[in-house]
Amino acid sequence: MNVISIGLLGLGTVGSGVVKIIEDHQDKLMHQVGCPIKVKKILVKSLDKERPIDIDPSVLTTDVNDILLDSEIDVVIEVMGGVEKTKDYLLQALNNRKHVVTANKDLMAIHGAELLQTASENECDLFFEASVAGGIPILRSIVDGLSSDKITKIMGIVNGTTNFILTKMSKNGAAYEEVLKEAQELGFAEADPTSDVEGLDAARKMAILATLGFSMEIDLDDVSVQGITSITEEDIQYGKQLGYTMKLIGMAKQEDDKVEVSVQPTLLSDSHPLASVQNEYNAVYVCGEAVGETMFYGPGAGSLPTATSIVSDLVVVMKNMRDGVNGKSIVSPQYPKKLKQDNEIFSKYFLRLHVSDETGVFAEITSLFAEHNISFEKILQLPIVKRETAEIVLVTHHASKQDFEDILVRLRDLKSVKDIKSTYRVERSSN
Amino acid sequence: MNVISIGLLGLGTVGSGVVKIIEDHQDKLMHQVGCPIKVKKILVKSLDKERPIDIDPSVLTTDVNDILLDSEIDVVIEVMGGVEKTKDYLLQALNNRKHVVTANKDLMAIHGAELLQTASENECDLFFEASVAGGIPILRSIVDGLSSDKITKIMGIVNGTTNFILTKMSKNGAAYEEVLKEAQELGFAEADPTSDVEGLDAARKMAILATLGFSMEIDLDDVSVQGITSITEEDIQYGKQLGYTMKLIGMAKQEDDKVEVSVQPTLLSDSHPLASVQNEYNAVYVCGEAVGETMFYGPGAGSLPTATSIVSDLVVVMKNMRDGVNGKSIVSPQYPKKLKQDNEIFSKYFLRLHVSDETGVFAEITSLFAEHNISFEKILQLPIVKRETAEIVLVTHHASKQDFEDILVRLRDLKSVKDIKSTYRVERSSN
Repeated sequence: MNVISIGLLGLGTVGSGVVKIIEDHQDKLMHQVGCPIKVKKILVKSLDKERPIDIDPSVLTTDVNDILLDSEIDVVIEVMGGVEKTKDYLLQALNNRKHVVTANKDLMAIHGAELLQTASENECDLFFEASVAGGIPILRSIVDGLSSDKITKIMGIVNGTTNFILTKMSKNGAAYEEVLKEAQELGFAEADPTSDVEGLDAARKMAILATLGFSMEIDLDDVSVQGITSITEEDIQYGKQLGYTMKLIGMAKQEDDKVEVSVQPTLLSDSHPLASVQNEYNAVYVCGEAVGETMFYGPGAGSLPTATSIVSDLVVVMKNMRDGVNGKSIVSPQYPKKLKQDNEIFSKYFLRLHVSDETGVFAEITSLFAEHNISFEKILQLPIVKRETAEIVLVTHHASKQDFEDILVRLRDLKSVKDIKSTYRVERSSN
Repeated sequence: MNVISIGLLGLGTVGSGVVKIIEDHQDKLMHQVGCPIKVKKILVKSLDKERPIDIDPSVLTTDVNDILLDSEIDVVIEVMGGVEKTKDYLLQALNNRKHVVTANKDLMAIHGAELLQTASENECDLFFEASVAGGIPILRSIVDGLSSDKITKIMGIVNGTTNFILTKMSKNGAAYEEVLKEAQELGFAEADPTSDVEGLDAARKMAILATLGFSMEIDLDDVSVQGITSITEEDIQYGKQLGYTMKLIGMAKQEDDKVEVSVQPTLLSDSHPLASVQNEYNAVYVCGEAVGETMFYGPGAGSLPTATSIVSDLVVVMKNMRDGVNGKSIVSPQYPKKLKQDNEIFSKYFLRLHVSDETGVFAEITSLFAEHNISFEKILQLPIVKRETAEIVLVTHHASKQDFEDILVRLRDLKSVKDIKSTYRVERSSN
């Protein structure tokens, strides 16, 4: 190989980072793969837009075919975002025998299987390390580093925006709306933050992680999702009192070859390795049957961290080109998908209630739990919040999701229960 | 390939783990590499010893040639330990075109370059993920995951024994000797703990990490080493008061293409990601120019975690065999070794002194620092420890190692300084 030619789809924050890293680290890259790398064409929306980096204008194009049909381009790097149109572009690239590196979690969570299949048929590589947890080489760690182990649990703080918001709410005792505004001003949250704060972004990443970790085709629809918009300062404070930190946790768990995948606000025991992951940082905690507990921590987004993952994928593509083994690393899922039902999903729960301040109410409530054989780990006795209303906080021992939801329905029917203020999953450290 | 045959050198704790994982996860391994794996021969010291796992006695041998000269054996896994004899075995294995996977940090820190050279000449793989931080896939993360970045700093808690001891000393306010005894009883420290507590084990791992991270041949002799045996409860308690946690930190740092590598007790700011790594756990914190801060956490030792790394290396060897690309991943160091001199190594320092309780002493001491333009970040005023003796604790701003050592010499000469009780490097979080 004399030179490797890249076609770049998109030149936003991450795309500019890719160009910068390829330029800045050309020496290191050449040492590893033995030939120079050239960004030959870049697809942009507008040729005239100001860019944060110097780019030869002749490299820019608004016509994707300048990349997809250029037989000299070896690798297409996709950082333009979007799903359906982008999928078409990448399918064409693969069918034209171009290797693909993408940072697109939406695309991979929805059309990953089809794209990988097409890549494999064309003996092309398709890598997507940057799609989950930005600069953390987590997919590689799961696929290669723990290839000999059976992974039983993956827990992730995989959305920087929500982790930033929850960290600030927890540290400053501030309200959600207030912190969201601050995050938007600092650029940690988008003008329309829906995809982040409703947990959808995290759900896409968890679908990708679960698919690779359990070798089972997990779709976005298989992930049960709840966002952070209804978390209150009170819940965070009660959590603190009880030794818990509030985090938006992606949870993928495998037991008896059945799998559960969810994203939900979770009260984590302070001693859990994920509890100390602050601000916009991401971390993925992986348990394996043999290895035990591991955790991978780093920046979950940002121009250069994400670009690092993309260019590291590019290095693998180039080594594979040199060795003539592209497309060999694509392994189809080993197991048919088996999802747990609600009566098979167990966890501890935090429950905060407003009840009538009357004799017998506490017994009435706890007896509902006793009927389902659910006992309590912690109970907070609280002062009366307003006339004739008391607040109760309960943390249960393990209960099935179904039992807990049945109990919630029956609690709502009780005359003495005025309001179910909040419920959260609770996770203890296994240490 | 019909079957991959393994020759195992050693059947201790880790060797037994390797056999167990290959048996337990045969399905997953076959799915990835397309053919079964068989442990054909195992070199042991005694055929009659009781083993924690069931082994067909005909697989055991006391003659290493049954492995080295068996043309059917594709891969040699070395978990017997030792240096010179083991090196000879592995050189023979490589020269007989057998791939090698080893967990031997001593061997790799001392003879890594020669072994890798021999592997490359024979187009053989030589992997050693398990040699550093047991179950954490850290070498792979540095070599592949961050291949596009320039690594500027690697800090590691890479010795479980000393981290266990320091965690207990810190939590229970216990003395070193007492905790060492507990660690020995629990199996976290060896009967002769010298290599762990004197920092040698950590130094070997740091030499391996620095060599890979900076692409520079760093020898064990290049690592400045200090162990934990003289750490006192007082130092740990003063650290706590000032917001620091005492850890044995391996530090490898690169600035202006010059490198420093050390292992020494360090007071880490409590907010540093490594500060919360408890007990026998290991973690490696890696900073890259582009990626920023990342951290990799997990079990640093133990039968199954270490075996996980070994068998994951084995999976790569087998995929390479399938694709005919063994030996291609060996990249020789890109840069000539350049080590920093003592006047180029900068850090903050903690210093605890016993001085005469007289007017003017404090001014006399601090003026020595002022002469070297070193100011203070923190000063602890302390009660008189005994008649006419006061204790002073100082934390400096950045100072060169040479300046600090010059000052220590001059402090020792001062009549008013009765004793230099302790000095430690101090590391702040970059957050």
